[in-house]
Amino acid sequence: MDASDSADRALALTEALIARASVTPSDAGCQPLIAEHLTAAGFDIEWLPRGDVTNVLATRGRSGPLLLFVGHTDVVPAGPVAGWRSPPFEPTRRDGHLFGRGSADMKTSVAAFTTACEAMAATPAAVEGLRIAVALTSDEEGPAQDGMRAIAPILAERLGTIDWCLVGEPSSRTTLGDTIRVGRRGSLSGEISVTGRQGHVAYPDQADNPVHRLAPILAALVGTQWDSGTEEFPPTRLQITGIDTDTDAGNVIPGRASARFNLRYSPATTAEALQERITTTLETYAPMAGIHWHHSAVPFASDAGPLRQAISDVIEDRIGSAPIANTAGGTSDGRFIAPLGAEVVEFGPVNQSIHQIDENVAIDAIGQLTEAYEAIIRRLARIARRPD
Amino acid sequence: MDASDSADRALALTEALIARASVTPSDAGCQPLIAEHLTAAGFDIEWLPRGDVTNVLATRGRSGPLLLFVGHTDVVPAGPVAGWRSPPFEPTRRDGHLFGRGSADMKTSVAAFTTACEAMAATPAAVEGLRIAVALTSDEEGPAQDGMRAIAPILAERLGTIDWCLVGEPSSRTTLGDTIRVGRRGSLSGEISVTGRQGHVAYPDQADNPVHRLAPILAALVGTQWDSGTEEFPPTRLQITGIDTDTDAGNVIPGRASARFNLRYSPATTAEALQERITTTLETYAPMAGIHWHHSAVPFASDAGPLRQAISDVIEDRIGSAPIANTAGGTSDGRFIAPLGAEVVEFGPVNQSIHQIDENVAIDAIGQLTEAYEAIIRRLARIARRPD
Ligand SMILES: [Zn+2]
Ligand SMILES: [Zn+2]
Repeated sequence: MDASDSADRALALTEALIARASVTPSDAGCQPLIAEHLTAAGFDIEWLPRGDVTNVLATRGRSGPLLLFVGHTDVVPAGPVAGWRSPPFEPTRRDGHLFGRGSADMKTSVAAFTTACEAMAATPAAVEGLRIAVALTSDEEGPAQDGMRAIAPILAERLGTIDWCLVGEPSSRTTLGDTIRVGRRGSLSGEISVTGRQGHVAYPDQADNPVHRLAPILAALVGTQWDSGTEEFPPTRLQITGIDTDTDAGNVIPGRASARFNLRYSPATTAEALQERITTTLETYAPMAGIHWHHSAVPFASDAGPLRQAISDVIEDRIGSAPIANTAGGTSDGRFIAPLGAEVVEFGPVNQSIHQIDENVAIDAIGQLTEAYEAIIRRLARIARRPD
Repeated sequence: MDASDSADRALALTEALIARASVTPSDAGCQPLIAEHLTAAGFDIEWLPRGDVTNVLATRGRSGPLLLFVGHTDVVPAGPVAGWRSPPFEPTRRDGHLFGRGSADMKTSVAAFTTACEAMAATPAAVEGLRIAVALTSDEEGPAQDGMRAIAPILAERLGTIDWCLVGEPSSRTTLGDTIRVGRRGSLSGEISVTGRQGHVAYPDQADNPVHRLAPILAALVGTQWDSGTEEFPPTRLQITGIDTDTDAGNVIPGRASARFNLRYSPATTAEALQERITTTLETYAPMAGIHWHHSAVPFASDAGPLRQAISDVIEDRIGSAPIANTAGGTSDGRFIAPLGAEVVEFGPVNQSIHQIDENVAIDAIGQLTEAYEAIIRRLARIARRPD
């Protein structure tokens, strides 16, 4: 098949995936559809369900270095449906864009990689010497417990050494390929709860206002510079995500105040060090305060290697200038693969509309991404065939 | 009638009032009952209803200085009824105390003053030369718009000069008469609202976290010393009564944060000066913040005069040591009478249980308060009869 064939097929497959309303943790038939395509392209399929989460591993090739594509078929809820210009689960072409929940995050890249594999299968000599695997989950947007986190040990067992891991998350900022991700920050959340003594505003001496304890804590957290980041990571940032009190009457001093926050942290610090600093702040202003921690992700970073080189070269050759390699954004399933020793790079569509109403992807970008993925596979296969 | 008669009658009347569930702004028949007693004691009755608020003015005597008793028959809601040891609107004697909503705030003092007037009526010579008036409302615990605030001009018209105003609010702290109030602080409330730009916690540069603007404002408000008070007033105090955000999801930077606060302020400052200082703080940290003010009470204070002297002497003679005269506590309807030129003093039961479950008053205190009120009336009548 030629390039325009690939583009059409990838577009059709993206539309077929969007039409399957796979709100996390539902897969809604997306992975069976992909598995059908990959089977036809010579892949072996292994289903790895966990609870209500659908996971699949597809593998092709018997020997050589391994390229693992990691993706997810689940999407975040549509949000207020009335706000969408077209129904979120009806893929709709408009003004050169394809609209629909999951179009950017990340059904386009799943469809593009699948289509690239189909194209390769038509010219098998081009992938000679390279093993290719595709691992998909329906639990990336949800708790992320029964998805890639759960099956990573199985991947390691089935696949052996994972040399290169391409994650299809929407890494691009304004045009396809302007940005790739070579790591992700860690994520640490906390909930501070200060218990005081409720009372009437007219009698403050008979009460203990927990907001007055919390206020300087929040000011301190907001005013803290946690670190200066690293060469690849921006500085650690804290965001307060919610504050409240147990009462909210004009003449009542509340009995309890609380605040929730999230830290996206660089490898310049550790979760333990952050926890200790915040605990010290609490002890200064509100020794009675409680704090509950949730550590959802450790940071990971991959050194520059053949995968990053291949992706950069392809982007520069085929799309435009070389991409910026950064570590911005939320967490991704790459964090579960990096510890297995793989070089992990994320490269996917423009992320401006993800998780929002009217999520969309440029129709041209679907074909471009498919071609780019195919070119990356070819380059890695050439590297795989090179005598050591 | 003798003192123990008076005590029994005041207790019975207090119980009859508690049994009338007059949750603000309902009067539930309390004022008609009082009016019946006062009519029998020689008072003229004028009803001054405003909307769903019941107000009554009772007057006795044609000439001489005037003593006005100000009270309210409405009560705050019972709160969680299951928490009460006996039903809130069933007056219940237990362990030497009378339990029921409104027992302390302020049906006991209304009953006590009414009974004192009945006792005086039995020996009219003792009140010769003194005019006595009783003004009651059912809107003291609520918005306080259609109660004493609304009828104060009418009182001024009907009564002429108001020399002395005795407010029956529960002023006592641990034993009857340990504290009287000779003024009240002002009350100024504000709501700060900071609008930022909502976003994902992983992309703080694309958002503007309003909590991060609000936090230093709150810390500054909490850390400010507003004034040092005056001889009679404690320093101005600010209490934050509520904080919140428009979203509270772990991965979302809120779009809006708000905080509500109340200032109880002394005459050492003014509402305008406080507003200006807070507005300046807002401009420093969050120029986009909005603030909405509610000024519910200006401070008032009465210089020492014959009423304060009479009350102090009676308390010292009949109950124990001389009372502390202060200006603590919430607002009271005294603020509407003070501007008419009256010497305003508040003297009533122990306030420890007011607005709480199991509100109660010591049974002995009901008789003591009745006797004290009667003695105060006699003293003021003697002063009234004195040649200038
Ligand atoms: Zn995603
Ligand atoms: Zn009251």
